[in-house]
Amino acid sequence: MSDDTRAVQRMAWTEAGVTHESDRVIAETPVALVYNGISHVVTMATATHLEELGLGFSLSEGILSSPQQLLDWELTPREQGVELAMTVTGDAFAALKERRRNLTGRTGCGLCGLESLQQAIPPLPPVSCDFQVRHAALQNALSQLEAAQSLKREIGGVHGAAWCNLDGEVELVREDVGRHNALDKLLGALQKQAHSAEGFVIVSSRASYEMVAKVAALGIPLLAAVSAPTSLAIELAHQYGVTLAAYVQPGRHLIYTHADRLAGGS
Amino acid sequence: MSDDTRAVQRMAWTEAGVTHESDRVIAETPVALVYNGISHVVTMATATHLEELGLGFSLSEGILSSPQQLLDWELTPREQGVELAMTVTGDAFAALKERRRNLTGRTGCGLCGLESLQQAIPPLPPVSCDFQVRHAALQNALSQLEAAQSLKREIGGVHGAAWCNLDGEVELVREDVGRHNALDKLLGALQKQAHSAEGFVIVSSRASYEMVAKVAALGIPLLAAVSAPTSLAIELAHQYGVTLAAYVQPGRHLIYTHADRLAGGS
Repeated sequence: MSDDTRAVQRMAWTEAGVTHESDRVIAETPVALVYNGISHVVTMATATHLEELGLGFSLSEGILSSPQQLLDWELTPREQGVELAMTVTGDAFAALKERRRNLTGRTGCGLCGLESLQQAIPPLPPVSCDFQVRHAALQNALSQLEAAQSLKREIGGVHGAAWCNLDGEVELVREDVGRHNALDKLLGALQKQAHSAEGFVIVSSRASYEMVAKVAALGIPLLAAVSAPTSLAIELAHQYGVTLAAYVQPGRHLIYTHADRLAGGS
Repeated sequence: MSDDTRAVQRMAWTEAGVTHESDRVIAETPVALVYNGISHVVTMATATHLEELGLGFSLSEGILSSPQQLLDWELTPREQGVELAMTVTGDAFAALKERRRNLTGRTGCGLCGLESLQQAIPPLPPVSCDFQVRHAALQNALSQLEAAQSLKREIGGVHGAAWCNLDGEVELVREDVGRHNALDKLLGALQKQAHSAEGFVIVSSRASYEMVAKVAALGIPLLAAVSAPTSLAIELAHQYGVTLAAYVQPGRHLIYTHADRLAGGS
């Protein structure tokens, strides 16, 4: 059994009575992402595919502009969690230090956080796309996603993110207790694993603005979400040229932005 | 119409074809929480009950040890969001400044984030409780929660948190695009609004360790979640003396910690 689950005891209540049972729940492990010795962020994650998490996070947050800027990485267990130490090129590290300086230089200001938000949503060139996705492919992706989420089926309590080809077939899937982590793991895996060049991402969760920004940073033209979109997610998807599908459910889904990339409707 | 929703255009696909419709989605607004002029954190929130959000966050994160330490608050719309400026007593502000100094003094250290995590999970005295909650009350709370979530019913895409009395009747409910915000709003509302002294909290989401820590900080002995618990949530609930119920579904629910506070089982 992998260390991404924990054994627990629990009591189950039904109308028929109470039973005491053993169970397993999904684990969340503090993972510190460290760049050239500088701890940048700690995320609570499921401790699988952590190198893909680090690479995907670095690219989707704009810390790295290409996978080649990640020179090396090393996982070190610590008492309270896991440290993922990444070695990045000098120019990437200089840009990260500059970004951190801009953030910390304003901590006395009542609006610094709001300005940070603007920094967190950088102007990106609109994603271009010369293919279309059929509505039927979105529906196929939904059913394949559910089948592909092995950790969810076994344990529950995790989100999934998958890369699908133009037929909606799931080619890669990653799972995590955090929905942004699941997406970052997938985006990291796309750099490493073979997959169709044309396709889209489907996530088992809601669509947040961060998720739209992450796929846009990787040039992915379509994000499909099983649950609701937020208003900022829709605004950013407009701005970044991302087609945003949401409430993808059996027999019905909604397209909020750039619907011209969908084909096969009437 | 309140400004917690946004009008959008969307395309709906079903087997019968495609339709173009107007819709409303939940808005997320950047809210900066500012203490005595110092911006502490920015959260993406639904812009309702923000004074309760500020009070609940301050108490549940241990920034304030009593509601009386919050002397005044003022909401100011800014170009990119909303600033919630709070005036707190000198001793509370001194403690906050000390906490921020401890956090920022370690940014060069690869483990600072992990140490921050330990700081974020402070040792709290176990929650004491001299009442029991019937299993039937949990089931009643579930059905009442769904009925009480008006924003969810109208718009969708939001989480809810509710205070229930020992019969499981919902006495207060708050909603937000963020599950932690919904809980903070509820915890703030409990300071202001009349409610039964004995009762419990039910949330429409998963149970995270932060949510367990938040209810423990307010001395609430039972947290019920509609969806999964994480491993850290269970560990903290053990440690803090919080009864953690999860996967609360019609006809069945699970108790992960301190099950002796439940009554009425066989």
